[in-house]
Order: sequence, then structure tokens, then C-alpha cells
Amino acid sequence: MKKLEGGVTAPRGYRAAGCAAGIKKNGSMDMAMIASEVPCVLAGTFTMNVVKAAPVLWDRERVKEGSGRAVVVNAGVANACTGKEGMDYCAKTAEAASAALGISPQEVLLASTGVIGQQLPIDKILSGVRVLAGSLSDTIGAGNDAATAIMTTDTVAKETAVSLQFSDGSTAVIGGCTKGSGMIHPNMCTMLCFLTTDAAISKEMLQKALSAVVPDTFNMLTVDGDTSTNDTCLLMANGLAGNPPIEAESEDYRIFLKGLLEVCTTLAKRMAKDGEGATCLFECDVIHAASKEDAKRLARSVVSSTLTKAMIAGHDANFGRILCALGYSGVEFDPEEVSLRLESAKGSLLVYEKGVPLPFDEEYATAILSENEVRCIADMDCGSYDASAWGCDLTHAYVDINADYRS
Amino acid sequence: MKKLEGGVTAPRGYRAAGCAAGIKKNGSMDMAMIASEVPCVLAGTFTMNVVKAAPVLWDRERVKEGSGRAVVVNAGVANACTGKEGMDYCAKTAEAASAALGISPQEVLLASTGVIGQQLPIDKILSGVRVLAGSLSDTIGAGNDAATAIMTTDTVAKETAVSLQFSDGSTAVIGGCTKGSGMIHPNMCTMLCFLTTDAAISKEMLQKALSAVVPDTFNMLTVDGDTSTNDTCLLMANGLAGNPPIEAESEDYRIFLKGLLEVCTTLAKRMAKDGEGATCLFECDVIHAASKEDAKRLARSVVSSTLTKAMIAGHDANFGRILCALGYSGVEFDPEEVSLRLESAKGSLLVYEKGVPLPFDEEYATAILSENEVRCIADMDCGSYDASAWGCDLTHAYVDINADYRS
Repeated sequence: MKKLEGGVTAPRGYRAAGCAAGIKKNGSMDMAMIASEVPCVLAGTFTMNVVKAAPVLWDRERVKEGSGRAVVVNAGVANACTGKEGMDYCAKTAEAASAALGISPQEVLLASTGVIGQQLPIDKILSGVRVLAGSLSDTIGAGNDAATAIMTTDTVAKETAVSLQFSDGSTAVIGGCTKGSGMIHPNMCTMLCFLTTDAAISKEMLQKALSAVVPDTFNMLTVDGDTSTNDTCLLMANGLAGNPPIEAESEDYRIFLKGLLEVCTTLAKRMAKDGEGATCLFECDVIHAASKEDAKRLARSVVSSTLTKAMIAGHDANFGRILCALGYSGVEFDPEEVSLRLESAKGSLLVYEKGVPLPFDEEYATAILSENEVRCIADMDCGSYDASAWGCDLTHAYVDINADYRS
Repeated sequence: MKKLEGGVTAPRGYRAAGCAAGIKKNGSMDMAMIASEVPCVLAGTFTMNVVKAAPVLWDRERVKEGSGRAVVVNAGVANACTGKEGMDYCAKTAEAASAALGISPQEVLLASTGVIGQQLPIDKILSGVRVLAGSLSDTIGAGNDAATAIMTTDTVAKETAVSLQFSDGSTAVIGGCTKGSGMIHPNMCTMLCFLTTDAAISKEMLQKALSAVVPDTFNMLTVDGDTSTNDTCLLMANGLAGNPPIEAESEDYRIFLKGLLEVCTTLAKRMAKDGEGATCLFECDVIHAASKEDAKRLARSVVSSTLTKAMIAGHDANFGRILCALGYSGVEFDPEEVSLRLESAKGSLLVYEKGVPLPFDEEYATAILSENEVRCIADMDCGSYDASAWGCDLTHAYVDINADYRS
């Protein structure tokens, strides 16, 4: 596996574009399109929120039917809680893309992000679709434009790509871009994530790979504990790599899975680090838990805690809050067996060992917690299962961004 | 039922005191004692956090055995995650109170709140116990001292009392005080709450009443989603009211239950309003839900959402976030049936009706949300069950308080 430059346009046969359609008040790019030269096999995972945005309902049907060629995305308005009008606007947007690209409306996927409970400015969206269709390109820059156009409160575009070599020597690429900075506590999937690959793979194996990777990557990520109405993760595979098609849990499937895990882990960590107002990526590694499910719940509870997030913001080694968050995770364990370590590029410090707080150098602890990537390792000492979760610190800037998001 | 001045000293036969034992660095009161002239029947509910503070383990045993006479409380150090030493300090504190008050150590209850993972300054605690025992008084002022001494980041002392009239004309009083401002997301009970009554009631009925009231009051309260290691709610009944003892689910039991509900609801709302950094009490009333459990989960999800809390701080009617939080509560419902209303002393505004966002006057909405008590009413229109939950807004001050809590 090799890391590559770029994102969704890194695999063969994908073009992308971004444009400013006038939805965002500041005039920056707010619509994106990703399109494949040939029909793609589709896989997707979507929000588990009962309140689902109109484009989520639209995409679920498309993914079920199984084939697609283009994705149209807008930022600024979420098209959630918009009733029948919201669904009608999905159909209109797909028809516009169909006309502009010469494909079927059923091959168009949609995604929206932004304010919930407002209708889409449909005229701007329809003009945007035509502009995007006319400016599609297969360059790295075009992929970056798409990654940038889907941002809301994000401060950096998030994209990555890897190349894989299959057992017969053929190579394929997986690329992806994602957005998400607030209302991030994915359940089945992240805010918006678009993954492309030129690997030849069956629909069944594509969905199996995505469903295997999402629980350990995007679902282990939290910014603020709010599971969005719009969470969407789409994976398109156009087969242009020409590898022997993956149709079973073969060695090539495992090679593909490993690549997909790498791409999704990278994107999940970048989302956490770019959480609204965040200054720090906060990782919790739970080790030696009694089960995989326990390890995941414990790790997620720690990075979700408002108090641990505030403690990271203050570079304050108030580790009792980490123990408290482990304790209310819903997992049974013996507190007397737990040990806790704080780590970053600055060093590593054991602060709690087998139920007993240890004396430590406060200045050294502060130095460790002042880095922009901080890790706490909770050793449960009751099994052989590990898991990692990713979050960020809670700062004034988060409050500022969200106290007045609509204006 | 009549509201009374005061708190834990309002019922007959209770004395209280507060003192500065030198645990808090700023020299303010940090220890409290509440004592009954005669032995009391006890009831209690405690944190469901797997990591339980030493005094929680101590009190659970006392409540199981069933009789007590005094409570000793300290603020500043939580005596949680402190291993065997922490339990030894509980025994030492109880012995000191036993000697000073001439009662058995088994009749002494304990509670602590503050930093987790530090040992108690035991010498200060033991001197404090002696000072407190020497200054007990049955005045309203003494009850207020106790309510003040148990505060940590609280900004106001929280106490209340009601008098009841039983069916035979006899009267009893229920009083209480509570603290809690952060790490507040009670599960079975609130941070620290001490309730006293002079009613004559059996242990079984006393625990039944407390267990009935806590789920609808303290367990419907959240400040930051963090369930503490120290949550403790104790209810002492000394029988001095001389009413015919309550020993079954009689009319007098229902009168007592109603009084207890009033006291606990008042205290829960005061805790939410005094949440760390809060400027506003935020109540969510869910009406017409399919079950009581659904109504409670929906209401709690809304007041727990970081994004709704930030929206209240910004007086911004971004009601989509409320719908989003209803949607990820884990309750199944049809979003097309939901209506949403925002309310305060300034007025009432329907913003979403049966799945459709309504146009509204932004200035009027901002005025409604700028009051210091704000309510949202979610009408699920699928049943006959209601529930209320209480929280507060999320402000810069919360981040300030918790980024550097220990210094």
C-alpha cells in the first residue's frame, strides 16, 4: 500500500468540480460534483438518526438499486426536516444533473449539509449543477475543489488516497474526501464522506468492506455528541483498474479492505482534529478490555466527555475525569485493575496504576497535554481486546461557532 | 402543601452547620454536617457509575442497614479513585463524628465532592468534624450554611422545604439542599442531595417514595452529560412529626410522595439553572409520546445536546437542532407528525408543524430565547405520555471553569 496525493480524482476514471452557487453568504464554494466515466458499483452507510434528511432517503434507494455515476453535493442548507418539498427538490436536482451529464436521474446521488429546517434555494442549486457539469476535471486540483466546496465550519479540506497491489500484480487506487466539524458523532457513518475506487469489485463485497470499516473508523469519532440528520458515506467502484474482480473474501478482498481502512482512519482523524473550535486531536486507546464492544464503548465514552474535552483544552492532567467517563460508559469493570497513561510527542506519563493515583510532575504533564495531538491509554487489564476513538478539545471557539451558526 | 423558608433544618429535630476546614484554597466553607436529635429511617439512591467514590460505597452499606443520625460532607476533594486509603479515611471520619456526637460510627453517613483521584486531607477533615459538631444549630441560617459549604463551582446555595398535612390533620415537613453545577448527568441520583423529614414513615415506604421521585426529577437533569462518581441522594426521616406512621401505599403516602416530588423538582431545576457557566434554565417538555420511557428519552436527548445548548446561549432559534436531537435519542417516531414550539416569559412561538418548518419573526424568536428560563415543547402526536427534562446553555464560562478546574 502506498499513500498518494489527492482524493476522489486519484483513481482512474473519476472527475470532480467545485463551484460557488451563492448558497453560502460569504461567496465561497458551496457545491461539488464527483462523476465517473462509466457506471459504478455503489455502497453506502447512512445516519441512524430517526430524522433523516431528504438526500439520505434519496441515496438509500439508489444504493439499494446498486449502480450510480455521479454525486451532487451542496453545503449551507441540509435539506432536512423539509417535508415533501425537500424530496421534490432532490428529484429536480437529479434531473438537472441527468440532463447535463447525459445519464439517468437514477444514477445521480445527492448529499446536503448545513442548516436543518430550511428549504434549498432550488434555483441556485439547479444553476450550480450546470456549472459543475461543465467544469469537471480529473486533476488533483479538481478533487481538492470538491473537498473544499463541501466544507461548512471546517477549516481545512480533508482528502486522502492510497494505491494497492492485488495478488496478480494489478494495481487499484482508493481515494476519498470528507467534511464534518460539528454535529459529529456518527452512528453508521460520518457527516459526508465520498470514497472512489477504480478496483473491480462486486456490489456485495463493496458493501461488506464499507460496513466492516465504518464501525472502527467514522463511528469511533466524535466532536460534540450530536448525530447528524445527514450523515452519509458513499463508496463508488468503477472497475477501471482491470484487476480480477473481487467477488469473495479472497486475499484481494483483504488487500482492498486494508486500503479502505487506511483511507477511512486517516479521514476520521482529520475530522476530529478539525472539530469545531478544536486545537487538539484527542485519541483514547483502550487496551486489554474484556471484549471488542467493551473496548469501543470505553474509548468512545472518554473522547465524548465534555469534561475530558475541557481538560484537554486547558492542558490540565485532571485524569479523574477520564476514569469517571470510563465508569459511566455502561461497561462493567473493576476500577482497581485500571491503569492510565497520558502521551504525546512530548513524552509519556503513567498517572494512575491499578486503582491508585500516582504522584507526577505537573509541569511535565502540562507539556505533554499542550501538543496538538494527545493520547490517553486506558489499560483495563481484564482481556485482550483493544480499540481507539478520536475526538477533540472543547474551546470558546466551539461555543462561538454554534451560538450563532445561522447568521 | 405549603412552601416554607429554609432547607434541611426546616423539619423538627434536625440541626446543621457549615465550616471552613481549609480544603478549598480560597478559604470559604468546605465542610457541612446535618444531624438528627433521634435516629432516622434512611433511604438513598447512588451513582450508577462503575467507578464509585469511597463515601458512596460507605453510604450504600449504611442505607442497606437502615438507620442513621448524621451526615458529614466535604467539598474540594471527591475521595474517588483513591483505593484502600480512601475507604480507611471514610472510617476515620465516621469515628471522629461518632466521638464528637456520642453516636455509633455506623450511624454516620458521608459524602464528598471535588477533584477525583486525590486523597482527602484527613487531618483537616477530622478537625472540621469537631468544629461542626460543636456548632450545630436548628436555625434556617444553619441549614443555609450547610447548603453553602457543600458548593464547588455552584454560584448559589440550593435549598427548599414544604409542609404537608396528612389525612388525620397532623403536619410534617420535607426539606432539602443540593449541590451540583458540573459533571451533572445523574443516573439514579444527583451529585449530592440531602433531604430531611420529620414524617413518621417505614424504611420500605421511604425508599419506595425516593425511588419513585428520583427518575422524574434528578435523573431528568443534565448540565454536561458526565455522570459523576459521587452522585448521592440521601433522605432521612426522624418521625418527630407524630403522624400515624406511613406503612403502606395509603393516602398519606401519596401526600408524602407529592411533597417529595415538589422538593426534588424545585432542587433539580435550581441545579440546572446554576449549571456551570449557565445563563439560562432550558426545559424541554415532550408531550403526546407513545410511552413514558419514550417521552423521557426524547426530553433528555434535547437538553443534553451540545448544539441545542450552544443555540440557547446564542438566543438563536435554530430549531433544526432540536429535531436532530429528538431523532438520535433512540426513540422511533414519525418526523412528519412532530410539531415544535419555543416559549418563555416573553411569549410562545410555533416554529415547526407536522413535519413542516414555519416562517417566523426572527426578532420575536430571539426575544423569547433571551429570557433566563426558556422552554421548548415537542409534540410527538403519537400517544398520551409527557415528560420534562432540564438543562442549561453552553457558554464560554463552562469552558473556563473546566479547562483548569484543579488550579
